[in-house]
Amino acid sequence: MTAFALLDHTSVFVFALTGALVASRAQLDIVGFLFLGTLTAVGGGTIRDLLLNRDAVFWIASPSYIAVASAASVLIYFTAPLLESRRAWIVWLDAIALSVAVAVGFGVAVNLGQGPFIVAVMAMITGTMGGLMRDVVANEVPLLLSQGEIYATACFAGALAGLAVLWLGAPLGLGMAVAAGLTFGLRAGSVAFGWRLPLYKPRPPRG
Amino acid sequence: MTAFALLDHTSVFVFALTGALVASRAQLDIVGFLFLGTLTAVGGGTIRDLLLNRDAVFWIASPSYIAVASAASVLIYFTAPLLESRRAWIVWLDAIALSVAVAVGFGVAVNLGQGPFIVAVMAMITGTMGGLMRDVVANEVPLLLSQGEIYATACFAGALAGLAVLWLGAPLGLGMAVAAGLTFGLRAGSVAFGWRLPLYKPRPPRG
Amino acid sequence: MTAFALLDHTSVFVFALTGALVASRAQLDIVGFLFLGTLTAVGGGTIRDLLLNRDAVFWIASPSYIAVASAASVLIYFTAPLLESRRAWIVWLDAIALSVAVAVGFGVAVNLGQGPFIVAVMAMITGTMGGLMRDVVANEVPLLLSQGEIYATACFAGALAGLAVLWLGAPLGLGMAVAAGLTFGLRAGSVAFGWRLPLYKPRPPRG
Repeated sequence: MTAFALLDHTSVFVFALTGALVASRAQLDIVGFLFLGTLTAVGGGTIRDLLLNRDAVFWIASPSYIAVASAASVLIYFTAPLLESRRAWIVWLDAIALSVAVAVGFGVAVNLGQGPFIVAVMAMITGTMGGLMRDVVANEVPLLLSQGEIYATACFAGALAGLAVLWLGAPLGLGMAVAAGLTFGLRAGSVAFGWRLPLYKPRPPRG
Repeated sequence: MTAFALLDHTSVFVFALTGALVASRAQLDIVGFLFLGTLTAVGGGTIRDLLLNRDAVFWIASPSYIAVASAASVLIYFTAPLLESRRAWIVWLDAIALSVAVAVGFGVAVNLGQGPFIVAVMAMITGTMGGLMRDVVANEVPLLLSQGEIYATACFAGALAGLAVLWLGAPLGLGMAVAAGLTFGLRAGSVAFGWRLPLYKPRPPRG
Repeated sequence: MTAFALLDHTSVFVFALTGALVASRAQLDIVGFLFLGTLTAVGGGTIRDLLLNRDAVFWIASPSYIAVASAASVLIYFTAPLLESRRAWIVWLDAIALSVAVAVGFGVAVNLGQGPFIVAVMAMITGTMGGLMRDVVANEVPLLLSQGEIYATACFAGALAGLAVLWLGAPLGLGMAVAAGLTFGLRAGSVAFGWRLPLYKPRPPRG
């Protein structure tokens, strides 16, 4: 397995953990865990592949992804009751999966010869869409839209940093590492220390 | 019309009935019935066809599907007021449409030469995604995620049984019949008799 | 830029305004504005292009669409606080974007040689799906499903009128203008004067 495929399976595995934890909070049965785990795990990459018109969606070309997502879902099915705070696990695992998936989406788009604009968009889609589907289907407030938290911003900054590194002549692997690292750093800072973007917020919501 | 196309139109028709009934509960106008009925009717098969990269999505290749879904939506528009319990009708019609759609998705994937893994996934997607879109768009709790009910599990068991029958050398039609039959039997048992999967449930939800 | 591309960019721009206004009501940060604005702006056309199996989704073929959507989102980020009633702005801008997008979807499908059935469906999908995604992701009640309002109906009527005009021998541009005009007229009448379809409504909702 190449380093690239290893990263890709990692993001699928960790996203599936988060989807299965959401299924646990909703008290679904084992197939509900598998459904929500797998949807979260492959959702972002699936949209990316459909948009980029690849010959085959990644998990159809290689079913090992579904196997990995299923294993993660079953693992959570048996271990979720042992966890102290499932919500905290979801947020942190999501931060890990997000970062790796941004790097994978970044790499896929670069390898397909896309321009920087589309590379950044594909990195964000791969990172965010699986978790967004998980939250919309489970009727939770999407992490992506958590008020005042850094989420999509982290992906965007990670992708830009990766592009900058490539533009300076670095190899793709380094660009991906920078993208993942900055995405995780910003997201983790938001979760752990409450980092925020300066809000331009002169009035209350709604209305 | 082949037996296959007949099944396919049946699932589209019955799913459209459920979508239009949900529109009736939400007091939409006639075009709202058509929209929600058609979305439910063709949603699962559309995702399947996009994922499998077929030359054309089934209802674009043959617009009779949209006509059938529209007819079902109009039928409900005029008859919904006569129904005693729309909720019960939705649940039972959904069970029928689900079972037929699982068999259709199963058959499409087998005919395209997909492996057993992807066949099972496509059967589940064809069965569940239309109803999931219906419920997410109408902001109802998805039937798919009804706590403790057998739903995705029924599709999964049906697809596995169909694969087993094919593996024993039976023709595709028999595999599809077995898939539909077991899916419907499990789902109906869940609705009528409260069948449940043994829940591994050692603690309350959330947290 | 052709008249067609100008229309297309207009619909993308105005839809992005509505998505960013929804982001403002939800108090997201600047990247949240960009995300929701862009999703709304290109959502409907993306589904249309995937369904029609075009060589490339329109905003991948030409990244100027993302730039336009981003500009609109940033514009709202700085001006939303100055608006008296964001809700009213959303409803009226959505009516404009809807009408233009119906005409664009109509034109794209006609140019691809689709039959009248699919032309009408693609006009509706292009018009409604971006706004539907906006509302589902932001967990607002979809404008599309607002009880008793004319929305999908307006798109449908607009598409039919456009088809009638083409059938009478008019050029595509006139058909598109008629489609946009009737869609906007009906939707605006519903918003401003409370126009309704005659409801066949003999009993209360739910049940």
